[in-house]
Amino acid sequence: MPNRQIVLDRLPNADRLAADHFALNVAEIPTPGAGEVLLKTRYISLDAANRAWMQGATYRSALNAGQVMAGGGLSEVVQSNVEHLKPGDLVFADAGWQEYAVLPGRGLQALPDLKPETHLLSVYGIAGLTAYFGLLKCGEPRPGETVVVSAAAGSVGSIVGQIAKIKGCRVVGIAGGEAKGRWLTDELGFDAAVDYKAPDFKRQLRAAVPDGIDVFFDNTGGDVFEACLFAMRNHGRIACCGAVSQYDGGPPPHGPRGVPGLIVTKRLNLRGFVVMDYAAENDQALADLQSWVADGRLKVKEDVIDGLENLPSALIGLLAGENLGKRMVRV
Amino acid sequence: MPNRQIVLDRLPNADRLAADHFALNVAEIPTPGAGEVLLKTRYISLDAANRAWMQGATYRSALNAGQVMAGGGLSEVVQSNVEHLKPGDLVFADAGWQEYAVLPGRGLQALPDLKPETHLLSVYGIAGLTAYFGLLKCGEPRPGETVVVSAAAGSVGSIVGQIAKIKGCRVVGIAGGEAKGRWLTDELGFDAAVDYKAPDFKRQLRAAVPDGIDVFFDNTGGDVFEACLFAMRNHGRIACCGAVSQYDGGPPPHGPRGVPGLIVTKRLNLRGFVVMDYAAENDQALADLQSWVADGRLKVKEDVIDGLENLPSALIGLLAGENLGKRMVRV
Repeated sequence: MPNRQIVLDRLPNADRLAADHFALNVAEIPTPGAGEVLLKTRYISLDAANRAWMQGATYRSALNAGQVMAGGGLSEVVQSNVEHLKPGDLVFADAGWQEYAVLPGRGLQALPDLKPETHLLSVYGIAGLTAYFGLLKCGEPRPGETVVVSAAAGSVGSIVGQIAKIKGCRVVGIAGGEAKGRWLTDELGFDAAVDYKAPDFKRQLRAAVPDGIDVFFDNTGGDVFEACLFAMRNHGRIACCGAVSQYDGGPPPHGPRGVPGLIVTKRLNLRGFVVMDYAAENDQALADLQSWVADGRLKVKEDVIDGLENLPSALIGLLAGENLGKRMVRV
Repeated sequence: MPNRQIVLDRLPNADRLAADHFALNVAEIPTPGAGEVLLKTRYISLDAANRAWMQGATYRSALNAGQVMAGGGLSEVVQSNVEHLKPGDLVFADAGWQEYAVLPGRGLQALPDLKPETHLLSVYGIAGLTAYFGLLKCGEPRPGETVVVSAAAGSVGSIVGQIAKIKGCRVVGIAGGEAKGRWLTDELGFDAAVDYKAPDFKRQLRAAVPDGIDVFFDNTGGDVFEACLFAMRNHGRIACCGAVSQYDGGPPPHGPRGVPGLIVTKRLNLRGFVVMDYAAENDQALADLQSWVADGRLKVKEDVIDGLENLPSALIGLLAGENLGKRMVRV
């Protein structure tokens, strides 16, 4: 039986990611050894971080040309040599862009039987947990405060804003284009939206946060980060989640102005985080997220694309900001 | 009786501060009204922040051309219209660069009778408290960790490094020139010093922190901040105290690289602070500082210059890094 794979054929380096950085490969389905499981991929998660991994070591090793493209997803156990997993179990696995993978069973755990199962990759997956922990642990929003989130129409940002509303905050989303802004305010209940692609972005931002920003949840870095830094209130918190504006190309020659001067004078607290750091508290987070979804206060938006062969274009499109909510590919 | 004053004759704007931005003025000694006190200045504190106040509003209003130059210092009460202060009391007051000042008594408190009284402006004043709170509250150093401090030979930095040693850390100071470095290691007990003016500064820094930096106490911003950011360990803390590299001129066109990317991937925590925010804990801080000075573990270095008329050159020299320890002018 063949195992179709998408290989990272060459690294983009400082170029924008393009389809010809990838190649389709057909391998044999591997056989699990002692302590291993054979997984069949159902859905692969697309994340801006996938591109960042090509730039160098981050919280994981850098990707190399020629390897199967890395990525996490939802997989079904089809053969198991470990006690705690049986065929039919669903797991979240770093299985890469391929139809089958063999992984050590240690570190994998059977996911709860939730419908729709795609929610295991969105609101109950890394996106939802990232939004939950980043906002609540690093942002520490208090009722009545103003929360601003960048990449607000993306998988993490759309959940951040809704959790902030649940916590009693005034919420402003920054996203590209008026259509996304309308979706944030009309569908998700954000108080205001700001279009970072508009020529008057900074003016829009100032108008949307007349009293300044208490909590900024940042997914983008770059100019949006700088504009929000200048709009922070004294004692504000910035949850540093990502820097998607800086992933698809070479490293930027400079950082944002106001660092560290405004951090001092405004007594800001900036905290970087990676969702794995809070794994010990996942159960509480999932219980909260499930209750909010169940009572309709947290809406889940998913953007599911069919076909392994569409993974490169799905990632390239995500980096260009074409998705609303959590993008994934059904394999 | 005349009251000699140094007036900020014109703002330096984007220029380097120079003697001709100041002018000597002779006014009348003012008379205190109800609730006010007349103060006679003994020592005026010189701080890099004095220059930052000329750039615009910070944690205080911006300075204006024509006003008596602002600055804090040690003053003696000579006439009092409030209950809690009597002639002869010493107070720390925002009295400006002048021989006499009238201030509201509210907000002033008699300082303890400590000798030498200059310590009330250095280790028991804003410098010592800034070092204490910034390091312990924002840096949270643990025994065995590596602490790096910039502007290490200055009033705050020299105390930060010594407190970090008391707390069991490995301490590296960044300062300009080999002489300052030798003073830090030979006199103050720092484990290593790095010369930011040396052509191989970054190599020196890497060699001095082979395992990376756990806590960075930053007084300078700019290139030194950037170099340390890249050398931070995962979960490191940066106490943002000041940005003296950016005070004496116009605002820098760019910020340091790696913001916010490295904050995310290294899960850093950056905290800006101003010493007044911790005033409620001053008593504990002063008790600790006094005990460390008494047992010889904390050495106090002061750089006292005589004469009100020398205030401009004293500040200009401080911005150029010519002082060791706490600089002040005896009036």
